[in-house]
Amino acid sequence: MPESHQLISLEEALQSILQQAQPPEEETLPLESSFGRVLAEQIIADRDYPPFNRATMDGYACSFEDIHLGQNTFMLAGTVMAGEPAGILPGKGTCVCIMTGAPVPEGADTLIKLEDTVLGKDQVVFSGAAVKRGQFIARQGEDARNGQLLLNEHCIIDPSLAALLASLGKANVRVCRLPAVALVSTGNEILPIKGKPSPYQIRDCNSWALKAFLMQYRISEVTSIRLPDDPVKLAAAIEPLLERDILILSGGVSKGQADHVPATLKSLGVQEIFHRVRIKPGQPLWFGKFPGGCLVFGLPGNPVSVQAAFKVFIEPFLRKSLGLTPVPEIFLPLGRGREKRTSFDEFFPVRLENDHSATLLFPVSYHSSGDFLSTTLSHGLALHPAEEKDLMEGQLLKYLSW
Amino acid sequence: MPESHQLISLEEALQSILQQAQPPEEETLPLESSFGRVLAEQIIADRDYPPFNRATMDGYACSFEDIHLGQNTFMLAGTVMAGEPAGILPGKGTCVCIMTGAPVPEGADTLIKLEDTVLGKDQVVFSGAAVKRGQFIARQGEDARNGQLLLNEHCIIDPSLAALLASLGKANVRVCRLPAVALVSTGNEILPIKGKPSPYQIRDCNSWALKAFLMQYRISEVTSIRLPDDPVKLAAAIEPLLERDILILSGGVSKGQADHVPATLKSLGVQEIFHRVRIKPGQPLWFGKFPGGCLVFGLPGNPVSVQAAFKVFIEPFLRKSLGLTPVPEIFLPLGRGREKRTSFDEFFPVRLENDHSATLLFPVSYHSSGDFLSTTLSHGLALHPAEEKDLMEGQLLKYLSW
Repeated sequence: MPESHQLISLEEALQSILQQAQPPEEETLPLESSFGRVLAEQIIADRDYPPFNRATMDGYACSFEDIHLGQNTFMLAGTVMAGEPAGILPGKGTCVCIMTGAPVPEGADTLIKLEDTVLGKDQVVFSGAAVKRGQFIARQGEDARNGQLLLNEHCIIDPSLAALLASLGKANVRVCRLPAVALVSTGNEILPIKGKPSPYQIRDCNSWALKAFLMQYRISEVTSIRLPDDPVKLAAAIEPLLERDILILSGGVSKGQADHVPATLKSLGVQEIFHRVRIKPGQPLWFGKFPGGCLVFGLPGNPVSVQAAFKVFIEPFLRKSLGLTPVPEIFLPLGRGREKRTSFDEFFPVRLENDHSATLLFPVSYHSSGDFLSTTLSHGLALHPAEEKDLMEGQLLKYLSW
Repeated sequence: MPESHQLISLEEALQSILQQAQPPEEETLPLESSFGRVLAEQIIADRDYPPFNRATMDGYACSFEDIHLGQNTFMLAGTVMAGEPAGILPGKGTCVCIMTGAPVPEGADTLIKLEDTVLGKDQVVFSGAAVKRGQFIARQGEDARNGQLLLNEHCIIDPSLAALLASLGKANVRVCRLPAVALVSTGNEILPIKGKPSPYQIRDCNSWALKAFLMQYRISEVTSIRLPDDPVKLAAAIEPLLERDILILSGGVSKGQADHVPATLKSLGVQEIFHRVRIKPGQPLWFGKFPGGCLVFGLPGNPVSVQAAFKVFIEPFLRKSLGLTPVPEIFLPLGRGREKRTSFDEFFPVRLENDHSATLLFPVSYHSSGDFLSTTLSHGLALHPAEEKDLMEGQLLKYLSW
């Protein structure tokens, strides 16, 4: 029986992982510390928005009825600046000079732009340009009604949401607590960043990629250690890390003599949920759960595998754990054909290039899953699905931006 | 003459702004503090990558010549684990057991996977599966050569670049210094976030959107103040802010009686570069330069205008100031037709939706440039170009993700 029959599919693996996501805990933060965090409360309008009929241009507010009756010369009855009470239009045939952002006086329902008027002594002559009832006035409550549920889902506090929360006076906001994460880079060949490698050694890079990925979700409470391919040392150092919410290991998950990670995790009581997935790169992926709650990702050791596994599995898990919807999927056409190399789902690094206003995906030169330069030079990953043979130029592929 | 003839185009405005970008200053940071910052040094490979001929699978390393001559039983001459010196293949007809990540012994050039072998006493029998010379070995220097220039442009230190820098042992990196920015929200109607607004007042939201945008570039040295529509108070409070690198004001840039920002800036010696652009929203945009170097953006006061102006003008300026290339442009098809409202370039908030693996842009309900909910509910902005009339479903538009 071909070995690949023992492996699970990308979709099965992803669903197994997502099933383990638990609803997040919450905490309250000042709005200015919340940028990039995940909002964890319903947002309800505290008043109408706009809160008053608001002038959207500088000009003169009047009654449309007067214009409709043919009037084009209006008595100027005062001025309303932004930040002042609106007052009341005194009567028929009057208008009020009004500034952008100011409240429109009661009795006025239409605004004539400054440019379409001539100001005389105590009166204003409208030029006769076509006028629509209600023009240049944002009506009270047209964007949202007092008490209206504006947001009922977890979402990242981005600039526009920060503006919305500020408008509503939310100086403090409920956000999701972030998970505590531990990273373990395994391998006798792995030195720290300041190490001087012998010809057969390399420096740890995976923990750096993972720390930078986690920082994108503002996760900075991260412990990072390196461990040799030694089951005793692995077990001793990993055991206390199982108190974290998430443990991510790289290296040591395949079937060689130095691959002690799966057995060590099992010996510590971590239950295997799956091992090995029909994907390239990243096939030896291991996933399990510690009864105390810690979720354990055992990633292969190559940097491209680690970076792809973060985008394909860990990021969707983090998002679900934080109550976020998945990153919106983007499909883009391939700029040139691509040969299938395996029967697996294949992720490959791509650059975006524009051709006559169409955005195309171009594969980046890529030697092996150890080829760290390929990811640095790419904008993201594209997926060559398992069920597709060679791809032709123009085929739409799923694109994951780094 | 129609007023729009006095305005400059989007492209002219953008070029005028970009011309003012100066090469950034630099500083050195530990790698762990550099995530999201802009790398400001050439990156040169400190050794070959891979640094040695590296096994990419667990298996047996041998000479392809032996296999080619029909041999399928090999003397097992030892084991090489990752992190150990490679040694030398002792002679014809021998092989070495080798683990993923280990260096391949001199004399061996091909690797047979564990699964394609049977291990006997002191010897290994290969199953006879087809073998390609060099298979499952990443050759020394195939990704990069010692001394090779790997990166010669400024780029954001994202996870894959962090991994690359760590691999090269760059515990400290040169990055671009970030600009010092001041924000001023103007308007008599504007209260702070903790204020209790009267019916004709609103809370400041623009400074919050701008702070969150700037944080995306790790710019956190930001002063933010609110000022009334009062030329004397404006001048007194703005003057010291002209020592910053960038000053961004919102509100007060149009032609009404309360629009004191352009005149105040001129009175302080800030030279106007342009005022008013053929775009919606954001038409009253003002841009100028203080002789001391400070660049001044006067944005309209509506939140959608502010957020669009950041994406369309300020972000490209920041990127150029940091030596970054522009955000790669993405063009996506429109999911339903859209009527043109003006003769200007029109930006409008859109959501991404996927239909049969094609990603389409759908306009989000949008009442006016004060409609803050429209940006929160959108994924980004799309551009309806000035020269296009009504758009049809399927037309490709430029898309700017928030």
